[in-house]
Amino acid sequence: MRRLGGKEVADEIMADLKIRVDALKAKGTEPKLAILRVGQREDDLAYERGVLKRFGTIDVAVEVTELDAGVSQEELDKTFDSINNDPKVHGILVFRPLPKGLSDEHMRRTIDPGKDVDFMDIRNMEDCLAGVRDCSAPCTAEAVMELIRHYQIETKGKKVTVVGRSLVIGKPVALLLTTANATVTVCHTKTVNTEEECKRADIIVACCGVAKIINENYVREGQIVIDVGMNVDEEGKLCGDVDYDKVSEIAEAVTPVPGGVGSITTAILLKHVVVNAERQA
Amino acid sequence: MRRLGGKEVADEIMADLKIRVDALKAKGTEPKLAILRVGQREDDLAYERGVLKRFGTIDVAVEVTELDAGVSQEELDKTFDSINNDPKVHGILVFRPLPKGLSDEHMRRTIDPGKDVDFMDIRNMEDCLAGVRDCSAPCTAEAVMELIRHYQIETKGKKVTVVGRSLVIGKPVALLLTTANATVTVCHTKTVNTEEECKRADIIVACCGVAKIINENYVREGQIVIDVGMNVDEEGKLCGDVDYDKVSEIAEAVTPVPGGVGSITTAILLKHVVVNAERQA
Repeated sequence: MRRLGGKEVADEIMADLKIRVDALKAKGTEPKLAILRVGQREDDLAYERGVLKRFGTIDVAVEVTELDAGVSQEELDKTFDSINNDPKVHGILVFRPLPKGLSDEHMRRTIDPGKDVDFMDIRNMEDCLAGVRDCSAPCTAEAVMELIRHYQIETKGKKVTVVGRSLVIGKPVALLLTTANATVTVCHTKTVNTEEECKRADIIVACCGVAKIINENYVREGQIVIDVGMNVDEEGKLCGDVDYDKVSEIAEAVTPVPGGVGSITTAILLKHVVVNAERQA
Repeated sequence: MRRLGGKEVADEIMADLKIRVDALKAKGTEPKLAILRVGQREDDLAYERGVLKRFGTIDVAVEVTELDAGVSQEELDKTFDSINNDPKVHGILVFRPLPKGLSDEHMRRTIDPGKDVDFMDIRNMEDCLAGVRDCSAPCTAEAVMELIRHYQIETKGKKVTVVGRSLVIGKPVALLLTTANATVTVCHTKTVNTEEECKRADIIVACCGVAKIINENYVREGQIVIDVGMNVDEEGKLCGDVDYDKVSEIAEAVTPVPGGVGSITTAILLKHVVVNAERQA
């Protein structure tokens, strides 16, 4: 069994980005991400630490604005507007869902498409829908495609089963894989026989958010299994949607959790910031 | 075998729209579609006649602007702008593809979302992507869903194979069917075994634009086959992507061409105009 690690993929992306960031700085442009966080949810803080670390490795600025969980809608929107209008900002990441009682509608509706590195406004997913090759996409979906590219996994004419139909990963990754000439089936909670749909696939993309649901009954020899899940198991340990121990005994290649797709996501976020800074420069 | 005719579906939609149009007129709003046609392609003229006839039955205005095929880009865009800015217009239909040398980019980028009845700007497909139930969609995709609704075809937990991945029908109908809880597989020219993918389905949606390609080898008993194709066969007769004579001997239900999905499309276009007029009133 091959372990498809994410670090190797992220390293490759970062090596390219370092050159591009140096070139930008030489021309006087400092790429910058603005994070807007409301409250202090542990998940958000963990991801924020990951972003700070990743961006720090090649010295790209991250400006964190923290608002109290009890902030008013007006204050939140005003803070967002000032970040959105700041010409020195090349990307905005807002942690969502927001605390209860706050809406992200104003932000989603007004974010500058040139700063929407996290695809808050789904209208910015038009290239995924249009079938533009190698287009930008929500970070995790693009991370899956980068992993496939890095490990030279053939998609043309292959059967792919995507388990999950969310807007942040299931749907965009299905669209990207269709553009990459795979024959894609999207399974979800109302699918009658997800095991069979998975077994028939050459590649499985698990992104349903249920700990270890993809087990030995869903896989067969020769398959590539890409795990996008990020869950906590009964022992409090981080795990994916795939039961790695069992599936790795059968499948040809599996991405681990942690250390798989999740390790690529912040590199993609950084790539989006760099692309926007390049466009503006 | 059940013949799933489109006329019955369109009649039902039109009966509802007649009431809504009368209500709008009573309040002083005259719903109006603007057609912008460049040149005189036979396909365009045929569809235009269909639209005029359909809208005429319940007395909804259609204003046709015809430009010479040799029009300049500037003149085309200027004409479009004046239609787009006309507050009396509730929908714009531009025949595309445009004659060689002309671009639709300005029109796609600037069309008022409240007039984009034909989804020129794919960003207006956001509701399809977001999974909003019973949302507006490109006319033919929405026509397929109306046919399914009218004939009370169950989609929840059913396997659907969509043959075709175009932006006007394949992708949006796959998204709408996923929202309707079907397990959807999208096949296309790079799919290795489309016959098998079709045979495994409960419902087949054929929208690849190849005359009669879905024949007896693609179907089995008990299936519902929805034909979105509009082609001309070797004898010069209108035909679908499905070989109706052969498939209707096997499948449980088939939509004919002509007289199937195509008969519903102009009713959906009219519905979009009415919805926009209602929003504005």
